Amino acid sequence: MATIGFIGLGNMGGPMAANLVKAGHQVQVFDLSAAALERAVSAGAQAADSATSAVKGAQFVITMLPAGQHVEGLFVTGDTPLFDAVESDALIIDSSTIDAETAKRVSAVGAARGIDFIDAPVSGGVGAATAGTLAFMVGATEAQFERAKPILEAMGKNIFRAGDSGAGQIAKCCNNMMLAIQMAGASEALNMGVRNGLDPAVLSEIMKQSSGNNWALQVYNPFPGVMPNVPSSNNYQGGFAVDLMYKDLGLAMDVSQQSGSPTPMGSAARALYMLHRKNGTGGLDFSSILKFYQEQ
Amino acid sequence: MATIGFIGLGNMGGPMAANLVKAGHQVQVFDLSAAALERAVSAGAQAADSATSAVKGAQFVITMLPAGQHVEGLFVTGDTPLFDAVESDALIIDSSTIDAETAKRVSAVGAARGIDFIDAPVSGGVGAATAGTLAFMVGATEAQFERAKPILEAMGKNIFRAGDSGAGQIAKCCNNMMLAIQMAGASEALNMGVRNGLDPAVLSEIMKQSSGNNWALQVYNPFPGVMPNVPSSNNYQGGFAVDLMYKDLGLAMDVSQQSGSPTPMGSAARALYMLHRKNGTGGLDFSSILKFYQEQ
Amino acid sequence: MATIGFIGLGNMGGPMAANLVKAGHQVQVFDLSAAALERAVSAGAQAADSATSAVKGAQFVITMLPAGQHVEGLFVTGDTPLFDAVESDALIIDSSTIDAETAKRVSAVGAARGIDFIDAPVSGGVGAATAGTLAFMVGATEAQFERAKPILEAMGKNIFRAGDSGAGQIAKCCNNMMLAIQMAGASEALNMGVRNGLDPAVLSEIMKQSSGNNWALQVYNPFPGVMPNVPSSNNYQGGFAVDLMYKDLGLAMDVSQQSGSPTPMGSAARALYMLHRKNGTGGLDFSSILKFYQEQ
Amino acid sequence: MATIGFIGLGNMGGPMAANLVKAGHQVQVFDLSAAALERAVSAGAQAADSATSAVKGAQFVITMLPAGQHVEGLFVTGDTPLFDAVESDALIIDSSTIDAETAKRVSAVGAARGIDFIDAPVSGGVGAATAGTLAFMVGATEAQFERAKPILEAMGKNIFRAGDSGAGQIAKCCNNMMLAIQMAGASEALNMGVRNGLDPAVLSEIMKQSSGNNWALQVYNPFPGVMPNVPSSNNYQGGFAVDLMYKDLGLAMDVSQQSGSPTPMGSAARALYMLHRKNGTGGLDFSSILKFYQEQ
Repeated sequence: MATIGFIGLGNMGGPMAANLVKAGHQVQVFDLSAAALERAVSAGAQAADSATSAVKGAQFVITMLPAGQHVEGLFVTGDTPLFDAVESDALIIDSSTIDAETAKRVSAVGAARGIDFIDAPVSGGVGAATAGTLAFMVGATEAQFERAKPILEAMGKNIFRAGDSGAGQIAKCCNNMMLAIQMAGASEALNMGVRNGLDPAVLSEIMKQSSGNNWALQVYNPFPGVMPNVPSSNNYQGGFAVDLMYKDLGLAMDVSQQSGSPTPMGSAARALYMLHRKNGTGGLDFSSILKFYQEQ
Repeated sequence: MATIGFIGLGNMGGPMAANLVKAGHQVQVFDLSAAALERAVSAGAQAADSATSAVKGAQFVITMLPAGQHVEGLFVTGDTPLFDAVESDALIIDSSTIDAETAKRVSAVGAARGIDFIDAPVSGGVGAATAGTLAFMVGATEAQFERAKPILEAMGKNIFRAGDSGAGQIAKCCNNMMLAIQMAGASEALNMGVRNGLDPAVLSEIMKQSSGNNWALQVYNPFPGVMPNVPSSNNYQGGFAVDLMYKDLGLAMDVSQQSGSPTPMGSAARALYMLHRKNGTGGLDFSSILKFYQEQ
Repeated sequence: MATIGFIGLGNMGGPMAANLVKAGHQVQVFDLSAAALERAVSAGAQAADSATSAVKGAQFVITMLPAGQHVEGLFVTGDTPLFDAVESDALIIDSSTIDAETAKRVSAVGAARGIDFIDAPVSGGVGAATAGTLAFMVGATEAQFERAKPILEAMGKNIFRAGDSGAGQIAKCCNNMMLAIQMAGASEALNMGVRNGLDPAVLSEIMKQSSGNNWALQVYNPFPGVMPNVPSSNNYQGGFAVDLMYKDLGLAMDVSQQSGSPTPMGSAARALYMLHRKNGTGGLDFSSILKFYQEQ
Repeated sequence: MATIGFIGLGNMGGPMAANLVKAGHQVQVFDLSAAALERAVSAGAQAADSATSAVKGAQFVITMLPAGQHVEGLFVTGDTPLFDAVESDALIIDSSTIDAETAKRVSAVGAARGIDFIDAPVSGGVGAATAGTLAFMVGATEAQFERAKPILEAMGKNIFRAGDSGAGQIAKCCNNMMLAIQMAGASEALNMGVRNGLDPAVLSEIMKQSSGNNWALQVYNPFPGVMPNVPSSNNYQGGFAVDLMYKDLGLAMDVSQQSGSPTPMGSAARALYMLHRKNGTGGLDFSSILKFYQEQ
């Protein structure tokens, strides 16, 4: 079993750290929120009084932060850069969803000092974080990936190596852009069918068994009442917030712009989420885009 | 076994009629093309010298025509309307992909004369037509549907009742709009990933096992070389032509306009297919939209 | 002075007929609405008891109807086709905004019988119809155009020959698609500027004097309070209704589809107007698209 | 007359500096390119051997650089920050087109040290830079604006105060997004008209005199042959490059994302320019988007 420093105990980081504890690891945690820290301690983690303390003696460091500037600040540009504090043979696994450019830049700074920093953003939301069934999309060398894998398996089910440094962030970005496109598309098709007299459950079933089949129709139907236990059947509470999808589509636009990759469909999806969001729906699940198609 | 009149023996109609013969039905066929007629006769059908002759004595009449004007012309507005010629207790099954308004109008004309006319467009392409594994999306009463089902099962695998008259065309329209959206989306995501250094097969696998999963990634990957036996691995030959997707997206725009159903994503997909098509790609498989994203 | 049959006395047709009277013509009017007919009579026109009576003895026939089916019904497919009733040397000027295909078809039917039927849709709205300052976009031969021009000048200021039969409808369609695109674009740019602290009047002025200049900013600013006497400064009352712009964008999609002309921007504008319209805004002026960008 | 330090002598900066010389100012110039420096000297400027030398004794400093990172590097984060070198009472005018966030950040750093730094991006292209008819969009206090105005008038015709720090960049961003939207829209409308048989010059004239009127149709028609002396009539050589419009639309996406301002039309325009650009057209004038609509 390993000693793991874990920094960032929000909605995702909290249950992820708890799963590491369950798997028998010694987990040294830090977060700016005292409440978050307390919850982790209740789950069996050791509270540290700073990020620097959390990484002391740790073979692995896992970070789960909101954006690229926080990751770069923590490791490189802040007052007490964590690259100065980590053990020389530690493997740093950043599971934050951030822009690939920052991920690569921080990794390169680490590499220049002989420190391993890999990107491993997750897919699956709070439910999967709690159940330990997240998907990890990893940007790392083969060797780094093999070293990280057993640790990640305590928190997730599908662990993919997407490629070298930054590739995890790119894969996450591509996947979530695809997700936004097909959630908007499914909402649009269902709304048009229903306006023309079709039953949403019948139309969903037809598309699922035809070439219109996708993840939204399979496990996350946006039309209220078609599926139990999904946000659409619970007033779009819980799940993956519109605001987070908006953030991810912004990252996709950055990747698109930097690499000259045309994104007409992703751009259209982003525009829809922005128009939807200005009506005060930022906190609803992202499948609430269906409501945006309906008469008010 | 039944006597079936079959009119329209093109790429789809030909193999569909052949499967009815295989199932033991007596199939009376007609087409304006002598070559198409001859192929059907080789498969065991009886050639008729006109549409009127083909429906004589038939309990079922199946039509497979290019557009709404052909269907309305054949049954209602032409010189020898087939509604004057069909047996009074025949069930007419129109498997053409046409606009729902025309389907409903023709059905209403039939109903006023005591003739049953239902819409049953198909999904699956030439391969499924030949293999007898088409999906049928049927707009009909429950009773009409039950009567048609055994006949359709000789040609298809999934037989859905979408709702009353016209609902089959609406379901087909919604499904194909969804398909265009996710094929364009998958192409866009894969192209962006590859431009950022990812392997298309690896990225496809990651999305398939995540929330980006859809039919295009599962069975019809648009990136050359990721899957064998799909059009993208055969220079986009065969499959479902760009020109046909363009036609179907035009039908979707009509349904959208007539019913006041917003279609931002379907409109964006149609725009892409139109821009792609003007480069002389109308005859390629519709997954060739990936090429439109790539540098020329 | 001429004898003119005028059919269709709605918001546009009424004042147009009145201007013909003012110019000294004898105007024989017909409309299904008794109230509309009465208003025209007050303005000096002669009421007819049917369309057939209205065109009796008229050298010119002008029609102003809602859609292609009405025009085709009136002249060709209805119970008493007007092509049977018009004087053999009359010039028929259809000022309705309809699809170019129908315009060309009706004109061809007329031509086969030696009757001149030209398309001459208008631009400018109710205000310009009343002031006699409409723009006419005419699809006609040179000779037909020269004959129509003096009559049209009694109702409008700019009289353009766009080309042969149908070209007037195409020009109108292109112009109104351009208008929708730039009205949405101006609203989007102004909203973004204002959200970033700019004054809408200052930003409007800057764009008007730069490369962002367009008709919307010049004479029809969508931001409330920037200009007096425009719909945006009167709660978007009056002007050109969202529902009419939606109809015109539908015609543009038809032209696009029939001619294989890509319309990514027009499609995006149509999607926005459809999304806006489902919130019960169909009767507001089309510059109300600005509201759709704002927080609710 | 004033002493002015001018840094950045590219296609725009070169002629701008020359116009300052013509107006009688003493202009101390610097650029990394020796050729650019030499051209400025031929025009009457004094060459400096570094940016630091160029600003020595200058009451005004003007910069014309490619992107935000260059501006921030030059004044704040580089090895020899220019904020350490400028005269304490100098007014710094940054005419680069950069993101508003960077403009505001650099201005705030300057303000904290008592140094005036304002944003004043330009509109009008190389032609206007040479002719001294640029538009300047200025983000500054009233007092800063009044001080800058006489200097800017030596290089431009329309000098606007858009608002406080950053507002010039926002205004430029909004204007250029509007420009991209209407250039793409005009190209789309003209292409559709021409595919339906209309003459591009006739259709342009009709729209110019109707509600479709805009800057593109007035002075920069994208259809070859309609206007002399515009890039479209010269194989899209010269003018404002596709690559620069692509850069500006990227800045617009950033502003949109940071401020939560929906940009469906701007996003659609950006998607078109990206798709166009991947065909190797980055160096053509941006009105070449018309070619992207045409059959290849």
